[in-house]
Amino acid sequence: MKTYDQMTKEELLQEQEKLQKEYKGFEEAGLQLNMARGKPERAQLDLSMAMMDLLDSKSDCLAADGTDCRNYGELDGIPEAKKLMAEIMECRPEQVIVFGNASLNVMFDAVARYMLHGVCGGTPWSQQGKVKFLCPVPGYDRHFAVTECLGVEMINVPLGEDGPDMDLVEQLVGSDPLIKGIWCVPKYANPTGISYSDEVVRRFATMKTAADDFRIFWDNAYCVHHLYEEADKQDHILNILDECEAAGNPDRVLEFASTSKITFAGAGISAMAASENNLRDTKAVMTIQTIGYDKLNQLRHVLFLKDRAGVDAHMMKHAAIMRPKFEKVEQMLSEEITPLGIGSWVSPRGGYFISFNTLPGCAKRTVALSKQAGVVLTGAGAPFPYGKDPEDTVIRLAPSFPGMDELIEATKIFICSVKLASVEKLLAE
Amino acid sequence: MKTYDQMTKEELLQEQEKLQKEYKGFEEAGLQLNMARGKPERAQLDLSMAMMDLLDSKSDCLAADGTDCRNYGELDGIPEAKKLMAEIMECRPEQVIVFGNASLNVMFDAVARYMLHGVCGGTPWSQQGKVKFLCPVPGYDRHFAVTECLGVEMINVPLGEDGPDMDLVEQLVGSDPLIKGIWCVPKYANPTGISYSDEVVRRFATMKTAADDFRIFWDNAYCVHHLYEEADKQDHILNILDECEAAGNPDRVLEFASTSKITFAGAGISAMAASENNLRDTKAVMTIQTIGYDKLNQLRHVLFLKDRAGVDAHMMKHAAIMRPKFEKVEQMLSEEITPLGIGSWVSPRGGYFISFNTLPGCAKRTVALSKQAGVVLTGAGAPFPYGKDPEDTVIRLAPSFPGMDELIEATKIFICSVKLASVEKLLAE
Repeated sequence: MKTYDQMTKEELLQEQEKLQKEYKGFEEAGLQLNMARGKPERAQLDLSMAMMDLLDSKSDCLAADGTDCRNYGELDGIPEAKKLMAEIMECRPEQVIVFGNASLNVMFDAVARYMLHGVCGGTPWSQQGKVKFLCPVPGYDRHFAVTECLGVEMINVPLGEDGPDMDLVEQLVGSDPLIKGIWCVPKYANPTGISYSDEVVRRFATMKTAADDFRIFWDNAYCVHHLYEEADKQDHILNILDECEAAGNPDRVLEFASTSKITFAGAGISAMAASENNLRDTKAVMTIQTIGYDKLNQLRHVLFLKDRAGVDAHMMKHAAIMRPKFEKVEQMLSEEITPLGIGSWVSPRGGYFISFNTLPGCAKRTVALSKQAGVVLTGAGAPFPYGKDPEDTVIRLAPSFPGMDELIEATKIFICSVKLASVEKLLAE
Repeated sequence: MKTYDQMTKEELLQEQEKLQKEYKGFEEAGLQLNMARGKPERAQLDLSMAMMDLLDSKSDCLAADGTDCRNYGELDGIPEAKKLMAEIMECRPEQVIVFGNASLNVMFDAVARYMLHGVCGGTPWSQQGKVKFLCPVPGYDRHFAVTECLGVEMINVPLGEDGPDMDLVEQLVGSDPLIKGIWCVPKYANPTGISYSDEVVRRFATMKTAADDFRIFWDNAYCVHHLYEEADKQDHILNILDECEAAGNPDRVLEFASTSKITFAGAGISAMAASENNLRDTKAVMTIQTIGYDKLNQLRHVLFLKDRAGVDAHMMKHAAIMRPKFEKVEQMLSEEITPLGIGSWVSPRGGYFISFNTLPGCAKRTVALSKQAGVVLTGAGAPFPYGKDPEDTVIRLAPSFPGMDELIEATKIFICSVKLASVEKLLAE
């Protein structure tokens, strides 16, 4: 089989005609499918329904330290919830604050806090001029939306298969004191699915920063979100808190995680892990901002998940639902796209996404074609700051939410759209 | 019986000696009592335990519009939760956003948002110079802590028995464009228990403000929190949203409420009601800040409280627990303090507090004496910005948390402390 770029103009035109027919069929079917959101499907949510029975009207609702979880108090979380989240994040309970249902909110509040109050007693970022964040790309659109919303300038840094381009990161943070942070999804990254190598983590911990109020936003959103049970098919990353401590930079990092994709996407618990200084700094504002988060839901989570072993066992149930979907999409792409030389991706071993690379200049058109034929995808450009994909090649695919049948239909339409957009592009050259 | 200020020095010294003996007895008893926090007692929390059974592993967890409450989505709350909170706040569901468990957090975020982003497209408050809030005093310490934390200057305005001194409010907001807001607890105010008169509410709605980005922070925390069932013993206030709309100032007010003191103090739901412009402005940042709040807890609340009638019936159960405590404290103060002319308070018909006024210059000393004898009270000064009570007279009493026996003991100690502090003061004059 010829790849598209080996085809003559004549052959491409024939291919286009064939594809247009196929595409018309999809349009006429009038399906409404969605591969846009990293959202668990219903069956995944059902996995945690037993959690709903663990607190009832007969419960005493007391935490291990005697706290009545129904009442005010315990600003930073009940002890057993700290312990659970510490096990998930592989750190110590005393490094943890437990928050409400959305870790995104915790990250937003952290950036907002630094803008208004500064970092650990330093000058507020908002009073230091135009502060900047490094943004490994492709990355998580909602991270970039937070920094954009809060007036932080964003600088793209390429994300490779073992993490961000650390030569560039070191050069930038080492020279520009206005660079105050970097967004990282170190494990099963959103959207490419890659995990940071040990060397990358160590370089993050040891690098010199021109700003002494620089912070790594380490969003370990998929820390236990493996697709495979076999140990050699699971990614492992170094513990950034330990590495920073060992490197003499204990305050450099804020780590975030949540149970949104462990229990209920909309009703989980979230956590931040950090050094003693950072926790104290965080709590100084937090104690003004709120009286405390929902401790009943914290208790419910502890009773349900119990410990790290409980979490790992539970995650394998998610994997059993997710894995066949990921494998199906990958299989279809391998069969239909790879031979034509018009797309590539990294096979993820965890997380929620497949990041598909089209030929340069084809992402937007592919997303538009898919949409017109009934498949909503994440907007092209979304994985980049300001929504601008410089090469127009990245499309984030989210296989989790649709059922298998819908997923197969959606992927067929996506594949047809990729082919059409690629042919159009090659014909226009 | 003579009042203290009618007593001779000799008589005061005798009284002091008697009081010191009594006080020593309290000290030796070594009790540990607390009248500091507006915290429901255990029996009040037990009133809502049936709520824990309404969602279980058999539930479909679907909102009225089909939303799966377990998953992501519905940023501003499920429709039935909006309806419930609208009934509590006596407004329309489309005026409501439902948030997480702490309305304080919603207020903090609103002020922070205005500091960083401005009001409805206006210049950020933080870029306009030293912005100011009016603070009716005595007021809620956590309100003042929010504005202090976010760098807002605070100006005291006296709070009378029908609301803030509106002549002063009108004069200040009419002349100073840097006055951007005012903190209000319009019903059963924290701590004095007074409710705003219709005239006060109307003047808030109609007054001219020099700042076009002025906002009233209307914390209707105790809107359904009556101590009495009889209609003529319940306070009613005008609807500020309606009044502002009628006055042509629909965007002037943000109203807040929560179920923290209806269901569970630490695990309720909160809400903001406001004009369409304000809601749009709020959601523009909110959609970046979070993915949405815990909808399962929203659903749980709707299933439990059902509607306004359900809320009202439930609140009468709280009143049955709270009322005897309030009446006991008031009775003891009336018998022991009033005849001596050394203290006054307004009898609250709802809310969580009794605000006690000592002789000038006696509040701090009274709180210190109480503490030394085993009763923790809210710090003197707390109901004032920067913790500074200019007359040193206000002490906030919170009768809700202790059981009746403890409450009586604590009140005895408090009364003895008031007397001792008053005698000391009069002897020093």
